Amino acid sequence: MEKIIRFGVSIEPDLLEKFDRTMEKKGYSNRSEAIRDMIREHLIIEHVKDPSAEVIGTLTVIYDHHVGPLTDRLLEIQHDHYQEILTTTHIHIDHTTCLEVLVLRGKTQNIQHLADTIKALKGIKHGALVITQRSM
Amino acid sequence: MEKIIRFGVSIEPDLLEKFDRTMEKKGYSNRSEAIRDMIREHLIIEHVKDPSAEVIGTLTVIYDHHVGPLTDRLLEIQHDHYQEILTTTHIHIDHTTCLEVLVLRGKTQNIQHLADTIKALKGIKHGALVITQRSM
Amino acid sequence: MEKIIRFGVSIEPDLLEKFDRTMEKKGYSNRSEAIRDMIREHLIIEHVKDPSAEVIGTLTVIYDHHVGPLTDRLLEIQHDHYQEILTTTHIHIDHTTCLEVLVLRGKTQNIQHLADTIKALKGIKHGALVITQRSM
Amino acid sequence: MEKIIRFGVSIEPDLLEKFDRTMEKKGYSNRSEAIRDMIREHLIIEHVKDPSAEVIGTLTVIYDHHVGPLTDRLLEIQHDHYQEILTTTHIHIDHTTCLEVLVLRGKTQNIQHLADTIKALKGIKHGALVITQRSM
Repeated sequence: MEKIIRFGVSIEPDLLEKFDRTMEKKGYSNRSEAIRDMIREHLIIEHVKDPSAEVIGTLTVIYDHHVGPLTDRLLEIQHDHYQEILTTTHIHIDHTTCLEVLVLRGKTQNIQHLADTIKALKGIKHGALVITQRSM
Repeated sequence: MEKIIRFGVSIEPDLLEKFDRTMEKKGYSNRSEAIRDMIREHLIIEHVKDPSAEVIGTLTVIYDHHVGPLTDRLLEIQHDHYQEILTTTHIHIDHTTCLEVLVLRGKTQNIQHLADTIKALKGIKHGALVITQRSM
Repeated sequence: MEKIIRFGVSIEPDLLEKFDRTMEKKGYSNRSEAIRDMIREHLIIEHVKDPSAEVIGTLTVIYDHHVGPLTDRLLEIQHDHYQEILTTTHIHIDHTTCLEVLVLRGKTQNIQHLADTIKALKGIKHGALVITQRSM
Repeated sequence: MEKIIRFGVSIEPDLLEKFDRTMEKKGYSNRSEAIRDMIREHLIIEHVKDPSAEVIGTLTVIYDHHVGPLTDRLLEIQHDHYQEILTTTHIHIDHTTCLEVLVLRGKTQNIQHLADTIKALKGIKHGALVITQRSM
């Protein structure tokens, strides 16, 4: 189990009160937890700016599976990058629309490049990538 | 099959050339596809600003499954929102770290609120939400 | 003078050390100051989501003053919104390019709408808006 | 005067109609202008990722001028970077609050670093930086 330490923060009462109120609205029951989450969020944003940082990405794509050779092309690209793709989840949104979520792992620049390549395919209607980090 | 129409865009040659170069780098082989993707991206950003818009979200969370009652709490919340959670994918990142990807569907404000609730749980190290749209 | 209080935060030593390192790189000499800035940043992001919140905005636009009636149109729009525009700074970037910075004050939705109107003018090459808040 | 060329875009009628509607709402009277603005926006976002790109930045800071040596420190830093600061606009928001807008010019990494340094000063309540590009 990890050791926990404690540090003090000086703050204007008014600012702290506003913060507590916002965090309560977000579902936090514990102020330290809220501060730690802000710190982690901040560190991740800094970390993933480095193109060679090891990160985890989740790419969500929406596409029309009737568009020509898209599904074949998508499968092919994924196999070419099997080492960076941990898993793929597919959901049939409606008769024509597919949703696919790819969990990616590797260097920021490679994850970004793979996401760009997939988003550029004809038939992909939208792709959204989030990048996070394994350990903090 | 959907009908396709064509419209013309006036532009400075220099600006078009820069655009073509950037899009080529991103993997586009077709300028119309690149323009359409920009248009969709733009529409989605506008659309999801509306709290009552119907959207699709992907929430990626990283957590330590050793932290107290977290896994129970996480399961409980997910069951309370089973109508908004299409699927969940779980990956064992290492001995202590879990990655979970939840595919969500519903109104922007509900998706956002559910994501906030999960991110606020003690033990969740990081949560990242992307919101997209089913049809465009 | 404002009163200052103090609160404690529990944290893993490893996470705190990473945070201290990042903050030092950003020029902070004091951890409380860094935490307070994160808290304010967070509150502002939440605050400006509300379309009727009172905010301050800075709109930076780049344009070519040779483009037809742009400068007249820009002046006209600014006079129509004189109550929302605190000041305008103009810089002659080069022979053709102008940079103008408008400091705006009012409700988020009005600031946003004014910025959209200006960005849509023919000849405006780029416009970037940041929104912040007067008091925290 | 710059030459203008024309290129064609293939698109689903439904997608084009939604785009036209959104752009009209934003104040565009001309579809080409809207497309060109999207293209420029896209190019700028790509451009400013390069730390050595020449950019223009606008830093908006809000501070309390009663806080110790802040105004002296701010002046000192600005003089140390006079080559990167094109102009500064100051507004007295209320009895205690100052708003200062700095127009910066230089490499992305230097602009970012200068903004970080100023934001880290004790007494600066909030700082927001936007980066854009001179010519497109």
